[in-house]
Amino acid sequence: MAATGTTSRLAEFVAGSTWRDIPPEVRREGARGLLNYVGCALGGCTDEAMGLAIRVLTPSFGPAQAGIIGRGERCDILNAAFLNSASANVLEYDDTHLPTVMHPAAPVAPGLFALAEARGASGVELLHAFILGVEASCRVGNALMPHHYRRGAHITATCGIFGAAAAAGKLLGLDPVRMNWALGHAATQSAGLVESLGSMSKSIGVGNAARNGLAGALFAEAGFTAAESAIEGKYGFAVVASDTIDLGKITNGFDERWEILANAYKPYPCGVVLFPVIDAVLELRKRIAVPVDQIVGVVVRGHPLLRERTDRPEPADGRTAKVSLQHSVAIALLQGAAGIAQFTDTAVADPQVRALRARVTAADDPSIPVEAAVVEVRLADGSTLTEHVKDGRGTPGRPMSDIELDAKVGECAAFGAPLVDVPALIKAIRDIETLGDAAHIMRMTVPT
Amino acid sequence: MAATGTTSRLAEFVAGSTWRDIPPEVRREGARGLLNYVGCALGGCTDEAMGLAIRVLTPSFGPAQAGIIGRGERCDILNAAFLNSASANVLEYDDTHLPTVMHPAAPVAPGLFALAEARGASGVELLHAFILGVEASCRVGNALMPHHYRRGAHITATCGIFGAAAAAGKLLGLDPVRMNWALGHAATQSAGLVESLGSMSKSIGVGNAARNGLAGALFAEAGFTAAESAIEGKYGFAVVASDTIDLGKITNGFDERWEILANAYKPYPCGVVLFPVIDAVLELRKRIAVPVDQIVGVVVRGHPLLRERTDRPEPADGRTAKVSLQHSVAIALLQGAAGIAQFTDTAVADPQVRALRARVTAADDPSIPVEAAVVEVRLADGSTLTEHVKDGRGTPGRPMSDIELDAKVGECAAFGAPLVDVPALIKAIRDIETLGDAAHIMRMTVPT
Repeated sequence: MAATGTTSRLAEFVAGSTWRDIPPEVRREGARGLLNYVGCALGGCTDEAMGLAIRVLTPSFGPAQAGIIGRGERCDILNAAFLNSASANVLEYDDTHLPTVMHPAAPVAPGLFALAEARGASGVELLHAFILGVEASCRVGNALMPHHYRRGAHITATCGIFGAAAAAGKLLGLDPVRMNWALGHAATQSAGLVESLGSMSKSIGVGNAARNGLAGALFAEAGFTAAESAIEGKYGFAVVASDTIDLGKITNGFDERWEILANAYKPYPCGVVLFPVIDAVLELRKRIAVPVDQIVGVVVRGHPLLRERTDRPEPADGRTAKVSLQHSVAIALLQGAAGIAQFTDTAVADPQVRALRARVTAADDPSIPVEAAVVEVRLADGSTLTEHVKDGRGTPGRPMSDIELDAKVGECAAFGAPLVDVPALIKAIRDIETLGDAAHIMRMTVPT
Repeated sequence: MAATGTTSRLAEFVAGSTWRDIPPEVRREGARGLLNYVGCALGGCTDEAMGLAIRVLTPSFGPAQAGIIGRGERCDILNAAFLNSASANVLEYDDTHLPTVMHPAAPVAPGLFALAEARGASGVELLHAFILGVEASCRVGNALMPHHYRRGAHITATCGIFGAAAAAGKLLGLDPVRMNWALGHAATQSAGLVESLGSMSKSIGVGNAARNGLAGALFAEAGFTAAESAIEGKYGFAVVASDTIDLGKITNGFDERWEILANAYKPYPCGVVLFPVIDAVLELRKRIAVPVDQIVGVVVRGHPLLRERTDRPEPADGRTAKVSLQHSVAIALLQGAAGIAQFTDTAVADPQVRALRARVTAADDPSIPVEAAVVEVRLADGSTLTEHVKDGRGTPGRPMSDIELDAKVGECAAFGAPLVDVPALIKAIRDIETLGDAAHIMRMTVPT
């Protein structure tokens, strides 16, 4: 009997999907997504928040079933999922599903690699589950936007958990009934606040999405029941999470459109709305022939969301700098780059950067789409230079190329885990469809 | 400098509270709350959901730092907090903060006992932290009612996590800044859906509240930062969680009123709105001189919430029977009792009970408060018997006496952990203020 409810139809789709249903371009984007995920986790694995989280959780670590990317520790699969999710997201360098501004991989991928280590999975099985998990997360997010995020739900965590549960459930081979329960367990554990962004607490929300989504699938596998209509029910997730609900976006067009094709990879480790701004600044910088102290002001025009999310003239540290328009502009103008090194506490404290930040302002222009920006630099001689970027790097109109993505993974590894054999790791992930044992990738991420 | 934000003021209150600030009647109610908690966990520890949860989590168990009430297993403190919270709530027999219909102890207490085992705590320290945790949960809940629960948030989980974090933070001796972070980590992890009630998934939400609240306090202790204004911020918990917000209910009258004094203990293991109904039925039963097959109909008049939450003529199992008006009425009429044994799968499947359930209907009467009910039994001879209960047992107007509470704990232990020495355990909890080592109570809950 075909399912009729939203949750059960989503469960039926995920449980019933076969590898031959997945088009080649979707498979390719899935592998790129996994590569970006592993790269980001390598970059983030030595972040201060990661060190603290490991210190807190170590006394509760279970058996050494799964590794932590870029590090030597091993622990139970639930803690591993938490920590590898936190590290993949902590630098704000991860993938972005542009319709929702969600970062799908950090919640979805870690549980899969942990299961691959603990129970075994082929590369194709893991990739298939990952693609379906991203699909589930993004479809749930699509159904709740824009109100869900606007009100304050951190959508990467709140909707990512659905993908984490769906993906893990797929790898566990759950039937549709149990997959429905896994999604139900995800619904009742969905959490995460935008207010936590800019503090370490963000990593708890994202880590929990991976951990608790995986746990939800394991509970469902064991026969732990959940509400059948956990998403669409009268007291279900949708009504709790948003005042703008379109459940059809969860269930329409299965196998016809794939959300992972709207997933972009960040060229800079900061908020996605800042990409066109940085692109514009880097272009302008080539045209400015005078010293930086001749810059009297910088005005950034963009979609109101840009100012709303990033108007922070005095970020306290590297973490808040990632959502600071002023810092991103200043550092790109001064250093001609906006990589991990440009968003550290040290970079934030630099007096030159601080002085320039004070001369950067934001102006709303609702006619400018969120993937675009206009930057004006005013010089002491009265002249003005303007740059208009229509499609920031890493947006659908200008996606990251394979070469750019490989370079990003290399930058991340150099920052967080310099002893990893990056070329071999990249090759293994790009060739994941040929891997008999997907856990091989995890072993390659551990520095030797 | 005195704190000004809602979250920071709550943190300052919890961190700054001293034992001598706690009035005698509050201390006494705290000990009663702990007794009821341990009793409920003993009753629930062998529930099917508990067995499954332990099977799922055992492969991820960390070191044997803490026990599971009523059972022999030991595990890390985070998993112990999850499991002891789930067992305390799984039978729907726990305490109820009537202004919010929240069950405060199941999220708040487990982390405290786990910490007492792993790090040591005196009875006074644990009791003090418990009282403050209940205070924090209920104040946050008060601020968001009625919309928060009405929309579908399972308030025991969503607000209980604040108390779990505050209580654990108190036992860890967090300063106000770190206590603020602990509350921030609670806010970003707050989750749980009313839709999950009636399925096992409910236990995941409640278990997570205990586990993740404790984790939040441990993260804060280690210096893991959170948003200072996690509750009241622009994208914080309050605006995400409710459309009816009164933040003053969180911060007004510290040390002047104590929410635990509005905490009641369930006389029956089912939804709190059903208590006056069962009371009325048990009274009516004494007056019905004819066989049950002469009952042609039962009409229950109550607050609309009663019908909304419990109108379930055909519960599928013992779990859903706990929120079934029809089952509660039928079983109380037939068996003259409404204890754990009356809400099992076996009781639900009984043909006589099923037949009588079909003759029970609910009628809304907004003039009847939620702690009251009117039950009319119509007999085959055309006569009608009516009973009006104004204050159900276990409501503030008719609280459970110490003797009733002891009997309840005995019933629970007899059901779930018959080998526990109940009189000694009750004495130890009532005398908790004299205990040098609060973990002694946990050791007494393990059957020998």
